[in-house]
Formats: sequence, structure tokens, C-alpha cells
Amino acid sequence: MKLSNYFLPILKETPSEAKIKSHQLMLRSGMIRQSASGIYSWLPLGFKVLKNIENVVREEQNNAGAIELLMPTIQSSEIWKESGRYDDYGKEMLRIQDRHERDLLYGPTNEELITQIFRDNIKSYKNLPLMLYHIQWKFRDEIRPRFGVMRCREFLMKDTYSFDIDQAAAELSYKKMFLSYLKTFEKLELKAIPMKAETGPIGGDLSHEFIILAETGESEVYLDKNILDIETKNLDYSIESVNGIIEKYSKFYSATDEKHNKDDFNQIKKNDQMHTRGIEIGHIFYFGDKYSKSMNALINNNEGKNINPQMGSYGIGVSRLPAAIIEAKYNDEFMKWPLSITPFKVAILNLGKNGDEADQKSLEFYNLLCNLKLEPLLDDTSDSPSSKFKNFDLIGIPFQIIIGSKLKKDEYEFKEIGKDKKILSKDEIINFLKEAYKIDQ
Amino acid sequence: MKLSNYFLPILKETPSEAKIKSHQLMLRSGMIRQSASGIYSWLPLGFKVLKNIENVVREEQNNAGAIELLMPTIQSSEIWKESGRYDDYGKEMLRIQDRHERDLLYGPTNEELITQIFRDNIKSYKNLPLMLYHIQWKFRDEIRPRFGVMRCREFLMKDTYSFDIDQAAAELSYKKMFLSYLKTFEKLELKAIPMKAETGPIGGDLSHEFIILAETGESEVYLDKNILDIETKNLDYSIESVNGIIEKYSKFYSATDEKHNKDDFNQIKKNDQMHTRGIEIGHIFYFGDKYSKSMNALINNNEGKNINPQMGSYGIGVSRLPAAIIEAKYNDEFMKWPLSITPFKVAILNLGKNGDEADQKSLEFYNLLCNLKLEPLLDDTSDSPSSKFKNFDLIGIPFQIIIGSKLKKDEYEFKEIGKDKKILSKDEIINFLKEAYKIDQ
Repeated sequence: MKLSNYFLPILKETPSEAKIKSHQLMLRSGMIRQSASGIYSWLPLGFKVLKNIENVVREEQNNAGAIELLMPTIQSSEIWKESGRYDDYGKEMLRIQDRHERDLLYGPTNEELITQIFRDNIKSYKNLPLMLYHIQWKFRDEIRPRFGVMRCREFLMKDTYSFDIDQAAAELSYKKMFLSYLKTFEKLELKAIPMKAETGPIGGDLSHEFIILAETGESEVYLDKNILDIETKNLDYSIESVNGIIEKYSKFYSATDEKHNKDDFNQIKKNDQMHTRGIEIGHIFYFGDKYSKSMNALINNNEGKNINPQMGSYGIGVSRLPAAIIEAKYNDEFMKWPLSITPFKVAILNLGKNGDEADQKSLEFYNLLCNLKLEPLLDDTSDSPSSKFKNFDLIGIPFQIIIGSKLKKDEYEFKEIGKDKKILSKDEIINFLKEAYKIDQ
Repeated sequence: MKLSNYFLPILKETPSEAKIKSHQLMLRSGMIRQSASGIYSWLPLGFKVLKNIENVVREEQNNAGAIELLMPTIQSSEIWKESGRYDDYGKEMLRIQDRHERDLLYGPTNEELITQIFRDNIKSYKNLPLMLYHIQWKFRDEIRPRFGVMRCREFLMKDTYSFDIDQAAAELSYKKMFLSYLKTFEKLELKAIPMKAETGPIGGDLSHEFIILAETGESEVYLDKNILDIETKNLDYSIESVNGIIEKYSKFYSATDEKHNKDDFNQIKKNDQMHTRGIEIGHIFYFGDKYSKSMNALINNNEGKNINPQMGSYGIGVSRLPAAIIEAKYNDEFMKWPLSITPFKVAILNLGKNGDEADQKSLEFYNLLCNLKLEPLLDDTSDSPSSKFKNFDLIGIPFQIIIGSKLKKDEYEFKEIGKDKKILSKDEIINFLKEAYKIDQ
């Protein structure tokens, strides 16, 4: 992409309404714009990051054996009356009447709808275990939306729902999702810590939040530092890997203030005690037959008896992840996107103009990188070099090729964000990028 | 994917509520389920087709130079009051009040919101021409939703909006989209005919509908048969290609009944006259400064004067396309998806069981095809062969490998939907599939 053809409205000043750095940075770098209170448009750069995150989440759901479908945003109130949650949900639920005065709502979550789909289509234990997921926009009418996409009203979630024949099978599904969350966040270069959690309006007995540490986080968290060193890289979704995964984490203390226990925390060695803040990026629940019973979803088990399947639900806040990643990674001077989700793989800063040597070199390198699927963003505008440097440190493309007039024919300035510049040849840069992005050609 | 792990609820009977074949087939093949009047869930098979169509549409938008972003589903009423359309839209607009009694709405279209984004972020002619698009769910509160996803209430659209400095430039953008629509539908194996259209509530002077011929279509259409033979394959988005594209089609008569002119139609040779029905799958509009003026979007032109940009909008009904494709391609006995959007590339019908030779051969072939990214769906259930044959003709995967016990070690029955079976070796099948899907490895 050439910047002169792109839509990247960078702001020089930090908008006064933005109180935390992710909100400031997403506005300044032209990723998002508010269109109504707590409702955002994702401009091209932000949209690319969002889509890339969505794909990382999707890939690991598929690896875990979950199957993707798509439920609509607007739901009938009737299924919510069946489950008994229509009144519970209060003013956070956006309630709507259609032209025939039927009560609809904008889904804040999907336990009812997936249970209805299951109930109408699956009758036998032979179809279990089953994990279904979708990635869809939701709405919660927050009383005070704030912090940009971190606490907004219309937001993108990945929700998985598991259906199992009994509690033991359901716990296995729970553990698979537990592992898939750890792997997903690892791919996003985030250190997510699972913490025992309250179940809230979803219900059930077993629940974990996945939290990343960030000083601007909404929750206070307490943990034993050793929990940060647990490795999950080599685990797969076999029963052997998955069993024991929760126990691995349970060995070390970790809790949000809701679940915090002072006495237990004080048992930890002083040096290992950590008290900080965190951001919730995932939440998983096991709630047995809460919905399958109230909504009368029945399956025939292998003894010919009708029983209610055991269910769980598993959410990732996809549209809050760009903000969470910024909170975790932005160091107040520059931003560097994880390679798995960067909006462009490499930036070319053309410091030449009007067909001079630098200008020509830039265009040639750009065409080459396009052909190699190395997705470059070429700054071909007439902005000053200093403004180009500033803008590109802001938007966080991990690598920059800087092309001015001072260097020899096959010499280029190459910079990895946060590191020193080097002088490299074209081939060296291409080989470096191919290796970084694991592209073999 | 193994069918035993998948969620594919096939119906044996045609549901009585479905009146047209696409609706019947999409329900029977487990692609969609209604969750409320005119609101559908996309089950895994339907979801895959929808996503694939989305990607074909996206690819050709990108080729035409349009840039993707994402606007939210829920909009503020204020911008609609600015443009003057808040009252015009009537009961088709889903109106909502939030907890603070602010008037919101579920976007039925996005001219206002994109104009607001443009107005707030773009000030100079240097940023033009600009084409922005998004693929997002919309809601129109149809009084009588019917025909499944063909005329529903929540639906997925691709909308592009063009911004240009003057009318001549705006017409060029219009022609680029005109061409991109022809190319998009060609990739979907659809013969779309552009027809001059009324502008309706969008407004403006110039508008074309893109219509495919189908007896069950909602519109009556009249055309000169010769229009079906126009070739667009070799056209690119250069000015030379794009200029003259509309003229090429204008040479031959084509009109919906709204714009039909009997006298003009009767000038056509009797043999070339065609009067049938069609389905609208795209609609494009040029409306000048209708929104940029009423909403006060201003750009500085190259003489330093503030002017209102010239705009157009361009829609494709993404979620009605699976139904439209079925109406155009299903021949009452079987379905065959276009290769560009098929939910799986090849089906394996395992007629063996419990580890017998056919069972083993099926699993081996399945693993091989997975490794080659030939995305197979393996029917490993205990259903009878006749029921497997019936189901797979219904769901429309273009190629089937049928593995029973009668054949020699390296012999397989291979069937392309709608053609006769052949006996082929493993390598012959793989080479055939690689060539069909243009996979080189």
C-alpha cells in the first residue's frame, strides 16, 4: 500500500477525551474514531489489526476442535424469557421493539441462542462432544462508556459454547479451551494469567478470567510471581496434555480482588508476592445444565434416556485486545505490534522526491516486497523526514526501511522499532524479513 | 474435517415454510436456521460459503483500489437528522432508545456515517480520489420477511463509498466499481447484467442494478440477448479499460419493469428479445454532493477553495448471494458450488466401516488431502451408502471420492457433481484437484 492512496488520519495532538494510553494512541494513529458514545468505527489501520487478531483467535479455536458458525446480532426476547434472564439483565441489555411491536434485543451474550440451535438440531449423544463458536458484534449499554474500545458499548467477541454428555466430558472441554486461551494469547505475545473468577450473570460453579498485567488495568490483582514462568508452548490438545493444565496454574496463588484471600497471599515468600493491576481479555465458564435444563435441550444418551447436556461458555474480547496489547507493549515513545497481527509487515520511508534516486529506489523496493507478499506500507508523501519518523514510530509497524540519498546503490537503513539502525543490502533485508515472518519462498 | 466431528444438521423433509428452492436447500443442507422472523443463524456449512463469498468480494474491491474499514452496526440518529433522512426512512429503520433515552438506530445503510468520518478527517484534495468500503451487518425492518436470506431483516452487505474532487473524477470511480462488480460476479460464476435503475431513497442521477437471471427472481426484466455475450475478462482498472465500460453495455437493451420502455424493446430483433425474471445482487449510485452538502463535508481544492466532494455508493448483498447462486445453479436434483466459494474442496464418502480396507483407505486419503490443503470433508459416519450419496449431492461439494471395498488398491471412484463417475488412481485425483483449484505445490 502506498500512503498517498491510503486513509490514515494521524493526529498531531492527543485528544483530551482520551485518558489512557491505548485510547490516545488508537486515536492518534488513526486506528479508530468514535461515532457515538461508546461506539467506534475502525479505520483502515485499526481494522487490519482487528482482523489479524480475529484470525489468530480463529486459528487456535480451530486447532482446539471448535467449529465456527455465526449467530445474528439481533435476538428475540422469547428465548431470554425461557432461560429466565430477560429481566435479570437490566439496563445493560439494549431492548428494541420492531414495527410489529415484538420485543427484540441486541445480543449481549449468546447462551440462549446457541442452546436453541442445539435443541432444535441435535438429539443424540453421538454428536457430542461439540464445541461451537462465533465471532460477532455485541452490545452492552454501559452506563459510562470510557477508555475507548476497552470499555465501549458495541464490541467484538469470540464466544465458544461446549456441549457434553456428562460432567467429566464437560471438564475436558473446559480444559481444552483453557489451553487454547493460553496459546492464543501467547501468539499475541501476551502473558495471560488465568485466575479463578466469579461467575456473575452467566452462572455456574467453575470460572477463570485470563488477565494480562498492566498498570492501567481495571482490576486489582494479586499473584505469586512464579506463575509467570509456567510454559505451555509444547502442549497440544491430547487428553494427556490437557489434563493437569489447570493444576499447573493452581499451584501458584493468583486472584483478582473479588476472590483475593489475604491469608493465603501472605503464605507466599515476600519476594514472590506481586500486587498490581490487570486487564481481563478472556473469561471461561462451566455451568452444567443451567441453560439446557431451563430451555429443555435434551439428548438421548447411550442408554436411550433423555438427558440435558452439560455446557460451558468461553469468551475472548476481540475488539478490546488491540487496546490491551498497546497497554502492555507501548513504552510511551513508540509502539511495536506483535508480528502475528501487525497491520503491515514493513514500512518504507521514502525520503526522496520527484523521481530522484531515493524516490526510485523506494518504488523498486516497494514493488519487490509486494511481490514477495511482505506487505509493505510505502510513505510516498511529501511530509518532512522528521514527521515521517515520528508517524511511523507511532503506528508501530515493526520494521522500517529508510531510503535517503546518502547511501550507496545497494545500501539501506534498516530499523527494528526500539532498536538501533543498521545499514543492510536489499537481500539482507529480505532474508531478515522472510525469517522474521516465517515466509519461505 | 470429519463429518462425525462436524455440525451439519441435514433435513430429510423440505420445511413447509420455505417457498423457493434456495430457501429450501439452505435449510435442508444445514446452512442456515431462522432464529427470529427474518433473522438467521449461519450454521457451519453456510457460514463457510458466506465467508468465502465475502473474500471474493473483498479481493476485487482491493483490486479496484478501495480501502477497507469497518463502521459499527448501531448509529446515532443525529447524523440522519443532519442529512434529512431520519424521517424519510419510515418503519424499515429499526429505531432504538438507549438507557439515557438517546435515539439510536441499526444502520440500514451508511452514507451519513461515512460522510461524517470523511468530514472529520479529510480536508484536502490531495487525499482524493478515495474509495472506502466495509462489509457489515445491516437491518431493515421488512414488513413481510420471506424467501429465507433473500429477503430477510438482518443481512450482510458490502458498501463502498467514493469521494472525488469533481464530477469527471466521480464518474471514473463509478466506472471502476461498475467493472469490479462485473469481475466479482464472474468469479462467483454468475452472469450479472447491469441495468439502469431508479435511485430510490439513496438519491442521485445515475444508478445501475446488477441482476442475474432466475425464474424465481423478484423483478421482471427485459433484455436483448446479445448483452449476455459481452466479455469483461481482459479488462483491468486502467483509465483505458474503465472508460467505455458502461457504453459497451448501453449498446444493448436491458431494463427492469420499473425502467422498461415497450417501444425501445420492440426495436430489438424478435429472436433477441428476452423477457424473464431476475435477482438483484448489486446496486451502484452516483449522487454528487447530496450528502457532502447537507452534512457540510468540505475539502480544499487545488485553488484553495472549499468545495463539497462528489460521492457515490456501491452495494453488494453478500448474504443474499448464497441464495442467488443456488437459484441460478441448482438444477432440482443436485447442487454444485462454484469452486471459488465451495465450503470444502472435495468430499470423501467412506463406504467402509470399523477399520476394514475401505475405512483405512478413506482415512489415509483424508490425511493426504489435508496435508495438501485440499480441505476435504470425510463422511466417516455409519449412515447407509444411499443416504451418503443423497446428502452429498445436496450439500454441493463439487467433487466426490467414493471409497468402497470393490476396487483395487490404488483405484477410487471419482465423481464431479453432475457428471459420470470415473475410476482414477490417487495421483490422478490429486493432480486433477490441484489443477481445478489452481494449487501448485
